[in-house]
Amino acid sequence: MDHVSRRSCYAYESPIRKLMKYANQAKKNGIEVFHLNIGQPDVPSPVNPREVLSDWKSDHLPYGKSEGEESMQEAFLAYYENWDVHLESDDILVTTGASEALLFSLFVTMDQGDDLIVQEPFYANYNGISQMAGVNIQSVYTPFEDGFPIPSMTDFEKVLTPRSKAVLLCNPNNPTGKVYTREMLLQLAEFILKHDLYLIVDEVYREFCYESEFYSVLRMDHIQDRVIVLDSISKRYNACGARIGCIVTRNATVREMILKYAQLRLSPPVLGQKYAEKAINPSQEFMQNMMDIYRARRVYVMDRLKKIQGIILNEPEGAFYIFAQLPVDDSELFCKWLLTDFQIDGKTVMLAPGNGFYATEGLGKNQVRLAYVLDLPHLVVALDCLEEGLKCYPYSSINQESSVAQ
Amino acid sequence: MDHVSRRSCYAYESPIRKLMKYANQAKKNGIEVFHLNIGQPDVPSPVNPREVLSDWKSDHLPYGKSEGEESMQEAFLAYYENWDVHLESDDILVTTGASEALLFSLFVTMDQGDDLIVQEPFYANYNGISQMAGVNIQSVYTPFEDGFPIPSMTDFEKVLTPRSKAVLLCNPNNPTGKVYTREMLLQLAEFILKHDLYLIVDEVYREFCYESEFYSVLRMDHIQDRVIVLDSISKRYNACGARIGCIVTRNATVREMILKYAQLRLSPPVLGQKYAEKAINPSQEFMQNMMDIYRARRVYVMDRLKKIQGIILNEPEGAFYIFAQLPVDDSELFCKWLLTDFQIDGKTVMLAPGNGFYATEGLGKNQVRLAYVLDLPHLVVALDCLEEGLKCYPYSSINQESSVAQ
Repeated sequence: MDHVSRRSCYAYESPIRKLMKYANQAKKNGIEVFHLNIGQPDVPSPVNPREVLSDWKSDHLPYGKSEGEESMQEAFLAYYENWDVHLESDDILVTTGASEALLFSLFVTMDQGDDLIVQEPFYANYNGISQMAGVNIQSVYTPFEDGFPIPSMTDFEKVLTPRSKAVLLCNPNNPTGKVYTREMLLQLAEFILKHDLYLIVDEVYREFCYESEFYSVLRMDHIQDRVIVLDSISKRYNACGARIGCIVTRNATVREMILKYAQLRLSPPVLGQKYAEKAINPSQEFMQNMMDIYRARRVYVMDRLKKIQGIILNEPEGAFYIFAQLPVDDSELFCKWLLTDFQIDGKTVMLAPGNGFYATEGLGKNQVRLAYVLDLPHLVVALDCLEEGLKCYPYSSINQESSVAQ
Repeated sequence: MDHVSRRSCYAYESPIRKLMKYANQAKKNGIEVFHLNIGQPDVPSPVNPREVLSDWKSDHLPYGKSEGEESMQEAFLAYYENWDVHLESDDILVTTGASEALLFSLFVTMDQGDDLIVQEPFYANYNGISQMAGVNIQSVYTPFEDGFPIPSMTDFEKVLTPRSKAVLLCNPNNPTGKVYTREMLLQLAEFILKHDLYLIVDEVYREFCYESEFYSVLRMDHIQDRVIVLDSISKRYNACGARIGCIVTRNATVREMILKYAQLRLSPPVLGQKYAEKAINPSQEFMQNMMDIYRARRVYVMDRLKKIQGIILNEPEGAFYIFAQLPVDDSELFCKWLLTDFQIDGKTVMLAPGNGFYATEGLGKNQVRLAYVLDLPHLVVALDCLEEGLKCYPYSSINQESSVAQ
């Protein structure tokens, strides 16, 4: 029996993980793969998992509360206070990562067939999670050449339909690295109010702003009844495996509805919450040290990429990604080729093809996302592989021997 | 702004957790609440969470693999070998509990608007999870009086539609405690084959069979291409908070499609998997001891309930629930009343109203599910509360002072 649902056949594959089988095969063949494809940082966490369960009291591991443990909600509360965001613990619903936070938010704000407005390019999994919720993405294209600014009211209005229910934004942006200012967000708020929409903002990269202060939509008092923030401890504390995030909203009706979905999956992971409670409010030194690491990587990767013939990039202001144009026609084929047909001294690099970060077919085909989540010596080798790969790739426009017109 | 999606307004609330706010209020008022509403066991786990991370190697907590850690898949493999089920590790996809396992299975086998056949009553959250997946439950009613046998081929065929894609079964059954024999399952397999359906079986209570051997659908060779088993470590090791389960299927196409959804949520909880790996294959002594505990509870609860005037029950053969009829018209009101208006010496009991275990409106209104997951001294008090509660409840037919005709 091999008939499965149509929706699963058409389900978006994560561009970040879809080439993993080729990476696994390369590793089996003895090749070392440098992962710039995935936002999986390598810096130490504020606490070591070894240490977090030493005060576990019970002889078993019961369900937690569906909305998250009270102690976890309190820890998030203290965290947001540091960002000048004043919440009640009820405003926080703990989730199994920001992915679940998005899925629940879509279920509650939108019905099947409703439209979700998203600036394009966007975090690839928004495609798949929207499909799970049965909602359509109405994308507002922002050109690579312009540096991915927030779209104007006019541009947003062009995609608006009677079924538009919400705008989804990622700030700082994955994959573009754009950081949206208070002024840009005020302009967006005007659009939200004018057309009676929800504003869902994914702020998981809040800490990662290199050139300006971060401004949270949770501070815009006049639209709090329509603001839903998605958050996660994964990136900022290098704790992706904990699977702990949250939904923050001051809208009590939205919270009440989200709780129904939260109860269906019983509770968020309890051990992950124990870990998160201890990791979530580290010392200033820890955060400064971590940011220094990322600053150095960012500078190195940008400088290096600028020197590689044929690569064009926008300087990212935040997060830890660079979205770049390569001198190839089809970056997915190139990324696959790097894993299946290329190596320098037994090493290669894995990137995330750009097309997966768009909803519109055909866009982003010469683009890739790189995550600068390795230490400097590893980044050097990874970018050596990229540079050499572009020279050797038969279909690259900088390959002198290429017989294919680009 | 208070308009939310229609689907969230109509979303099924878990009957197991929906009265929790009243329980929380009772606790705030100083009342001790005995929870027979939720399948949250109290026996010790095979390992203590304190001990499972002592050999953690890394200084951070990275994502796991979307299909689960290899070591976790291997641990499941060894577990199934003990049940005479021989699998490859690829056959196992680790999930965030059996709830996620069901959601993914529905996404892959069914499109929006397709029909899922389920025997009624059934585990309440099947309602909500089916709604999340946008599929309709076609329920096959089995009468309380008959002891909830597996429906006949004719009964199944009565609800069959052109959009029926799968049968979902829970064995041993939550809430009825029914255990399905090999012969019953063969009869069901015939129906599955005749109408080209998938068979999704929730086997999370596999260990909890008191009167007969458990027989897994994974042993029915002739239908393996259409069998999907949902599993979880929660109940058998008292590890509900780990949120670790799995999907088992030998159908490679189904696995490939499920992996897409698994990649969207990145990975199952990593700390929960560390815990599960160490808990999943305990000593025979551990399991025997645990089962002795449940056997004693089951006998006590059944004997006690039979002596309470007006209660009717079917003797459960498996799991750790009793589905009983009470001498009340509306058990949800009674369950709420127990939390808001009743106490003996500062104690009361919480039960799960029966109507939530049906899809058909109006069914199960005089029924409740009790989970015998407390130790004997606590069960004694909990059932004292139930007995006394029924006597005091103004709308109970055994309340002599009741002025309301029942």
